[in-house]
Amino acid sequence: MGRLVMQYGAPAAVEAIRARALPPEFAAQEAQRAHEAKQDRTPDLTARLNAWQARLAAADPAADLEAGERSGARLIIPGSPEWPTQLDQLGLGRPLGLWLHGAADLRFSCLRSVAVVGARAATAYGAHIAAEFGVGLSESGWSVVSGGAFGVDGAVHRGALAGGSPTVVVLACGVDVCYPADHDTLFAAVRDQGVVISECPPGVHPTRARFLIRNRLIAALSRGTVVVEAALRSGALNTAAHALSLNRHLGAVPGPVTSGMSAGCHKLLRERKAVCVTSPEEMIDLVGVIGDDLATPSRPPAVPRDKLNETTRKVLDAIPVRGGAGPASIAVAAGVSLDAALSALGGLAAAGYIERTTSGWRLRKQTASYRKAPDSAVLEPPLTPESDPTDEPPFPDDDFRA
Amino acid sequence: MGRLVMQYGAPAAVEAIRARALPPEFAAQEAQRAHEAKQDRTPDLTARLNAWQARLAAADPAADLEAGERSGARLIIPGSPEWPTQLDQLGLGRPLGLWLHGAADLRFSCLRSVAVVGARAATAYGAHIAAEFGVGLSESGWSVVSGGAFGVDGAVHRGALAGGSPTVVVLACGVDVCYPADHDTLFAAVRDQGVVISECPPGVHPTRARFLIRNRLIAALSRGTVVVEAALRSGALNTAAHALSLNRHLGAVPGPVTSGMSAGCHKLLRERKAVCVTSPEEMIDLVGVIGDDLATPSRPPAVPRDKLNETTRKVLDAIPVRGGAGPASIAVAAGVSLDAALSALGGLAAAGYIERTTSGWRLRKQTASYRKAPDSAVLEPPLTPESDPTDEPPFPDDDFRA
Repeated sequence: MGRLVMQYGAPAAVEAIRARALPPEFAAQEAQRAHEAKQDRTPDLTARLNAWQARLAAADPAADLEAGERSGARLIIPGSPEWPTQLDQLGLGRPLGLWLHGAADLRFSCLRSVAVVGARAATAYGAHIAAEFGVGLSESGWSVVSGGAFGVDGAVHRGALAGGSPTVVVLACGVDVCYPADHDTLFAAVRDQGVVISECPPGVHPTRARFLIRNRLIAALSRGTVVVEAALRSGALNTAAHALSLNRHLGAVPGPVTSGMSAGCHKLLRERKAVCVTSPEEMIDLVGVIGDDLATPSRPPAVPRDKLNETTRKVLDAIPVRGGAGPASIAVAAGVSLDAALSALGGLAAAGYIERTTSGWRLRKQTASYRKAPDSAVLEPPLTPESDPTDEPPFPDDDFRA
Repeated sequence: MGRLVMQYGAPAAVEAIRARALPPEFAAQEAQRAHEAKQDRTPDLTARLNAWQARLAAADPAADLEAGERSGARLIIPGSPEWPTQLDQLGLGRPLGLWLHGAADLRFSCLRSVAVVGARAATAYGAHIAAEFGVGLSESGWSVVSGGAFGVDGAVHRGALAGGSPTVVVLACGVDVCYPADHDTLFAAVRDQGVVISECPPGVHPTRARFLIRNRLIAALSRGTVVVEAALRSGALNTAAHALSLNRHLGAVPGPVTSGMSAGCHKLLRERKAVCVTSPEEMIDLVGVIGDDLATPSRPPAVPRDKLNETTRKVLDAIPVRGGAGPASIAVAAGVSLDAALSALGGLAAAGYIERTTSGWRLRKQTASYRKAPDSAVLEPPLTPESDPTDEPPFPDDDFRA
């Protein structure tokens, strides 16, 4: 309130109060007026006021309530038990009320929730990841908040439904309007298990502006937002911007740099606005309780060789693949004493790493390639994807612990 | 020197001095000794010294020089005109000398160079990106430093050769040893246009340890390192760690989260150790001269609608797709005055966005979908990949500027 008075003087403040009775477009007006103020273009307040009054005259709250009731929707306002108080962080942009249609309790559903957003024209990759996130979050007891569009939105809600947790669809039109029309069965399923919500009264149809206004709710309802796929020009990036402005966590799922639909995610990562998130666990790690919801850190696979001690490993490295070498030359090559080399050779032979030939010690083929491992306590089948297909000496890839 | 004395006392210091005459494995010994010191395991210095002396006795520098000359290689040492002084940052780990074989001048080639590293078992995606980076860097006058392995190493060198700049292959074996053998033609091409280098004397074969030791050279020679593809257990991550310890720039190329070969890159990004790099330009932006080598920032595509002013855009949003609406109701829906609405409608009709029907104004189909645009100064063919395939109202994706 005070901010408004400072910014535009009393008339606008009055208008702001009156605007409380107006449709959500008010938020957009707010944003634009702030924008104009920045550009020192003083808005024609009188014209605005008249326009809004015309609108106010056209509004019919009683009819809206009746229509909502008919469609089975309910209206909640700040103070209602089901009101998600985190919306208060939107300040003047807080919705005047929300229309809900569904079995789930909105406030409860959003306590542990993640917004999963992304492109409508998602690739097969994006849709797959979105579905995986939906299932993963849902099975971990986290609910999903997203829009109702094709692509990522639809995929993540389907995944969340499969996972059995409530899911929240935030529409840019009335909750009784099915947009896109092909999502009627999806929305029906969401109403059974989750809730479909909107700040638009029943019967209102979507416009560009309403989608952008809607996005702030998706960001504000959830603990954090993850962008699955987004082109450089994308509504998902708009939601991401809202999440950042609300100081909520922001994650981005990387994808092929050859895919334009991941360019938006990579931009967020490159500008360090978003954390790189590759799994639902990592997203929960980001938004969850510190210490409680940690994701299991991605560890490099262990290989039998790791169990060998330093000296033995050096000796193993010094043993040729072809031909053969005597203990003395192996000791020199490994840079260890002859005694150490001899004992190491015994152990390696027993473990099936090396074999003695007429020409001396050499690696056993399957050791070099970590393929078929002999029955041995030390040598287990390899876990590493880096196993060497050739019978050349194994590469350092098998040697390095990240 | 002083560090060593503090750590192990005089004997080790003496050994360190002597070690200057020893093969590069000394660096590994250094590392391991530091490791043992951390674990309070005092190393058996005498045994080490004996082992090294045995090795020293086996060394034959004269024969090495002769063999090198025969193979056409040259040996450079610190102080040689061709010596890359950035190697001095390796401290005690600085190579004692380098064997070079190739037409290019190593020092000059590394002035503007990027290390491109990645998995040997690269996917088609990784190989494609590596080749693109090779060409891109090369054509921008940057040379590539990498290993000589299959996968990313080979692909980036081939790309660099195609781009016409010198490329540097750092081997973990003697420069006269072709490992892997199938890369003989590639190495021949590199010798013509770039240079093949190694700190190992001629005839030395690769071992695990040598690959890890070699990696520090790749990181130290270049201005920065970019990891194209790496599994969680990967030599490329070892090179990345070297780059970080040398305070060089580190970039990582994202990939599908479903690909294990990108898991290492995503780990670097998630831990914010690496910058997300999606193109050669972005890597040059990272390592290049501030201001001079900036990458063109990725911008969202522009659409004709962007050219419309605020009021006109609001009016356009308020016009229905089907049926039709009169100016008055449009003005109310748009929240603008009737005069403003009327003038906007005229302009939109002239620009071919809307049409007048018996029932009032409505969107023209191709406007809603941004498909076939009429000949108009305002309405140009769409640049955005987000164009809507349906004749539903266009989505906010077309509305949002990142």
